[in-house]
Amino acid sequence: MTKPFDLLTTAIGKNILVRLKNGMEIRGTLEAYDPHLNLYIKDAEELVEGEVKKKLGAMLIRGDTVVYISP
Amino acid sequence: MTKPFDLLTTAIGKNILVRLKNGMEIRGTLEAYDPHLNLYIKDAEELVEGEVKKKLGAMLIRGDTVVYISP
Amino acid sequence: MTKPFDLLTTAIGKNILVRLKNGMEIRGTLEAYDPHLNLYIKDAEELVEGEVKKKLGAMLIRGDTVVYISP
Amino acid sequence: MTKPFDLLTTAIGKNILVRLKNGMEIRGTLEAYDPHLNLYIKDAEELVEGEVKKKLGAMLIRGDTVVYISP
Amino acid sequence: MTKPFDLLTTAIGKNILVRLKNGMEIRGTLEAYDPHLNLYIKDAEELVEGEVKKKLGAMLIRGDTVVYISP
Amino acid sequence: MTKPFDLLTTAIGKNILVRLKNGMEIRGTLEAYDPHLNLYIKDAEELVEGEVKKKLGAMLIRGDTVVYISP
Amino acid sequence: MTKPFDLLTTAIGKNILVRLKNGMEIRGTLEAYDPHLNLYIKDAEELVEGEVKKKLGAMLIRGDTVVYISP
Repeated sequence: MTKPFDLLTTAIGKNILVRLKNGMEIRGTLEAYDPHLNLYIKDAEELVEGEVKKKLGAMLIRGDTVVYISP
Repeated sequence: MTKPFDLLTTAIGKNILVRLKNGMEIRGTLEAYDPHLNLYIKDAEELVEGEVKKKLGAMLIRGDTVVYISP
Repeated sequence: MTKPFDLLTTAIGKNILVRLKNGMEIRGTLEAYDPHLNLYIKDAEELVEGEVKKKLGAMLIRGDTVVYISP
Repeated sequence: MTKPFDLLTTAIGKNILVRLKNGMEIRGTLEAYDPHLNLYIKDAEELVEGEVKKKLGAMLIRGDTVVYISP
Repeated sequence: MTKPFDLLTTAIGKNILVRLKNGMEIRGTLEAYDPHLNLYIKDAEELVEGEVKKKLGAMLIRGDTVVYISP
Repeated sequence: MTKPFDLLTTAIGKNILVRLKNGMEIRGTLEAYDPHLNLYIKDAEELVEGEVKKKLGAMLIRGDTVVYISP
Repeated sequence: MTKPFDLLTTAIGKNILVRLKNGMEIRGTLEAYDPHLNLYIKDAEELVEGEVKKKLGAMLIRGDTVVYISP
């Protein structure tokens, strides 16, 4: 039976878009995740209106700040 | 006895509307859910005033950001 | 001894008003609830100032978004 | 030794004022409570500036939305 | 070794000031507290800018709404 | 191996600055802390823009309202 | 298998940028972290628009206020 986190399993090493509760959008490569939805992202960029605003490199996003993750 | 999550069981593979705490509305096909209300949605679209604003494809919505889910 | 959830037990199958933390009011028939206060509502309508704004059909409301429930 | 919930034990069947995190004030008769501070109120009224704005009848208030309860 | 709650133990029966997350200030006599920081206050008054705005009598303050308590 | 709370262990009896989620800044002597980051502060002062706004004496700060603590 | 916290393990003793839920940005040397994402930072500086606004020295950041950490 499919589970929600299956989507993340198949997204490892791929480009994802992460929407955060503070309104930020982060785009980058999903390196790792855990059951709290903490995310290790590589080559992360902050987007504003879909345009790159800031390059942030590697980052750890705290899971409880995530709204959605879209591969 | 009926339980709240029974509504989700019958909604798998069907179109649902998800209202989020940040005011966003997401429409798409429910692929999977878990007891935290984490949702795996396919063909997701962000709606504004009922109109499609952005096509988002597959996504994982964090359960604690959900207000309601309506099939 | 009476407990708070006794009010919900007697409200199954009846019309209820649900006030949410985001300010929304939902009216509909209580189909089921669980200890987290997750609610399965049928024939749900969103109210604004007591008037029906939108018909939403069946829905699952996440318990942690509830302020009060009034049968 | 006195405990905070002793105040509620003695308030059963009496009139209380409940202040909520969203700024609402509810006045009514305390019918029941539980350790989460979920409250079953009868003859509830919503107050604005101390005046009755709306009569709500019986209601279940979710404990985590309470600021204070005053008999 | 001193612990934070020692401050409350010595404040029982004394006048305290409580600052809440919604910006309210409550002054009154600490009657009881528990490990969640739920507070039973007697002769409580709501303060605005240090002046008494409203007399509230006895009250139970929900612990998670507290910012600080100062005897 | 160093742990985050080591910073607090060495700060007992010393002056600290505490930034709270509601934007307040408290300065005073750290008397005690616990694993929830509840803080017992002596000779506490509320700061606004680095200037003393109000003298608050001893206080217990609820841990979940803390942003950072700086000795 | 890589885990999100691996990023922090390799960042000990190095310069990191921490984005907080209240919008603050803190830059400094990561001295220690724990599973709650509590952070012990040395030579911390508060940034506004990427410029140093205030030097804060050593600090303990409460984990639940973190949005992301970027080495």
